[in-house]
Amino acid sequence: MTIERIEAAAARLAGHVRETPLLSSPALDRIAGRRVLVKAECLQHTGSFKARGGWAAISALDPDVRARGVIAYSSGNHAQGVARAAAAHGCPAVIIMPSDAPATKIAGTRALGAEVVLYDRASGDRDALGAEIAGARGLTLVKPFDDAEVIAGQGTVGLEIGAQAGVTEADVLIPCGGGGLTAGVALALEARAPGLRVRPVEPEGFDDTARSLASGRIQANAARAGSLCDAILTPSPGEMTFPIMARLCGPGLVVSEEEALRAMDAAFQHLKIVLEPGGAVALAAALYRPDALAGDAVIAVASGGNVTRETFCMALDRAGETA
Amino acid sequence: MTIERIEAAAARLAGHVRETPLLSSPALDRIAGRRVLVKAECLQHTGSFKARGGWAAISALDPDVRARGVIAYSSGNHAQGVARAAAAHGCPAVIIMPSDAPATKIAGTRALGAEVVLYDRASGDRDALGAEIAGARGLTLVKPFDDAEVIAGQGTVGLEIGAQAGVTEADVLIPCGGGGLTAGVALALEARAPGLRVRPVEPEGFDDTARSLASGRIQANAARAGSLCDAILTPSPGEMTFPIMARLCGPGLVVSEEEALRAMDAAFQHLKIVLEPGGAVALAAALYRPDALAGDAVIAVASGGNVTRETFCMALDRAGETA
Repeated sequence: MTIERIEAAAARLAGHVRETPLLSSPALDRIAGRRVLVKAECLQHTGSFKARGGWAAISALDPDVRARGVIAYSSGNHAQGVARAAAAHGCPAVIIMPSDAPATKIAGTRALGAEVVLYDRASGDRDALGAEIAGARGLTLVKPFDDAEVIAGQGTVGLEIGAQAGVTEADVLIPCGGGGLTAGVALALEARAPGLRVRPVEPEGFDDTARSLASGRIQANAARAGSLCDAILTPSPGEMTFPIMARLCGPGLVVSEEEALRAMDAAFQHLKIVLEPGGAVALAAALYRPDALAGDAVIAVASGGNVTRETFCMALDRAGETA
Repeated sequence: MTIERIEAAAARLAGHVRETPLLSSPALDRIAGRRVLVKAECLQHTGSFKARGGWAAISALDPDVRARGVIAYSSGNHAQGVARAAAAHGCPAVIIMPSDAPATKIAGTRALGAEVVLYDRASGDRDALGAEIAGARGLTLVKPFDDAEVIAGQGTVGLEIGAQAGVTEADVLIPCGGGGLTAGVALALEARAPGLRVRPVEPEGFDDTARSLASGRIQANAARAGSLCDAILTPSPGEMTFPIMARLCGPGLVVSEEEALRAMDAAFQHLKIVLEPGGAVALAAALYRPDALAGDAVIAVASGGNVTRETFCMALDRAGETA
């Protein structure tokens, strides 16, 4: 992985994904005790940075390969990022989703033009089903994070941060699942703004990346599910993303689910943006972990793809009770 | 009022207010039956375009006059816009608010550095109180809309729309209270993009501007309060704003409170932004009044300043029930 690959992705993405704003508010600065800059990827198409990786991967395919179509496993943001990019390229897309995925997510993915194939989470074999469909139709698998073009696409967030930040020394906090965004941003900032140090942020109980960085080798989570931060629950960092993170990132940070919900409320109140719990963990660390951070400013990437009305209002309700 | 005055305001605002993005979503396009472009002024500092008018007015004052301070009457967005601009200019600001204003609005205005003076809505005389304070301290009144510099400041929204829209023929829908934003945007687009026709949007029962435009003279509302769209409830269009609107605007549009709440939910779901009811009326007209609009695209200005958790979640709940 090189900065040139991220720059090439940025050139393909230009005009097709948004350059999202870096937002701020004096109220957030007061909570955090330092200047807080929020990279509002919730304002990206499909509501999350996954639109970048999906576009980068599909636009990089050989036209003949692309014409046969792509396949992805996802019940959330990656599904929508892949579906949107595929539709714009005239490329068939099959998304494999669990049959108990929320109806809005299934409908949202279909509305973007993808064919949704459901499997039973208890009895079905997702990988076998996907492999069978991919083989029969000649589809190309688009992985959610352990893919060079996906990492390059997410890395364009880092190019933008480097150009927008206006600060040269700060921690850059990233909501971290498999590490595609974290690794991509770290690579971009290594080249463009080396004083901006990337640090992954995860929810309690799903701190595989923090533990992997601390131990120097890939660690897994005990649990596979059970957090509202569902957008960033992955078993462990990727084979491709982990070495990049190990070379470039500072120590991982961990926040509680409750803190993620409070950060959603803070973003609602003071930035007027909609985050999902998993997309709010980096802002939560920026606001509620001041002693773990260095410098006069902190940058947090925030994302909002698939939050439901119920989860959002629960976050606001709980914050109101503790205010 | 001239385009030069708006351009001069834009030069003073540069670097101090945000150029807000023009957002879109295929889902909104489907609801509306045409392309919908949303000027997201909720992402402006203080959550609304009022930050522009406040800055334009205070930055235009003679330094000696400004050093004595300013005064404004407002319980909402104008208060915060004035308070923010005053603080940045080292200018004392007194904001006269009703004593029954929500505690969060009072606290928010104080947090921006303003002195809040409360009056009793039932027994107090707001104007007499303000005149007494202003006279004793030599403060300058910053009116919320009927002021040339405020109109020029809000008009910078129109300069940005003209540069961002990428369409040459469309209705531009504006949430309309006293008409400062509507008149300012209309003046800017007259000069920069004359095929973009400005139309004010108001809530049912408070359609003073629509009736004034239809009759050719200033009309008043029967009621003074009683709508969730409190951000845009004014008795009648301004003496300065109305002639501009009468010369440049298309017919006004009226939406129900329920439609404004549904538009808040649509913006939450598909754009990941937070609107307040009064700031959502133009989007509501774009989505739910297709037969009243012309062309393949519509532009709606949206704003979010002072929405509470309770109002926001009520909007989402009601939309969920009717979905």
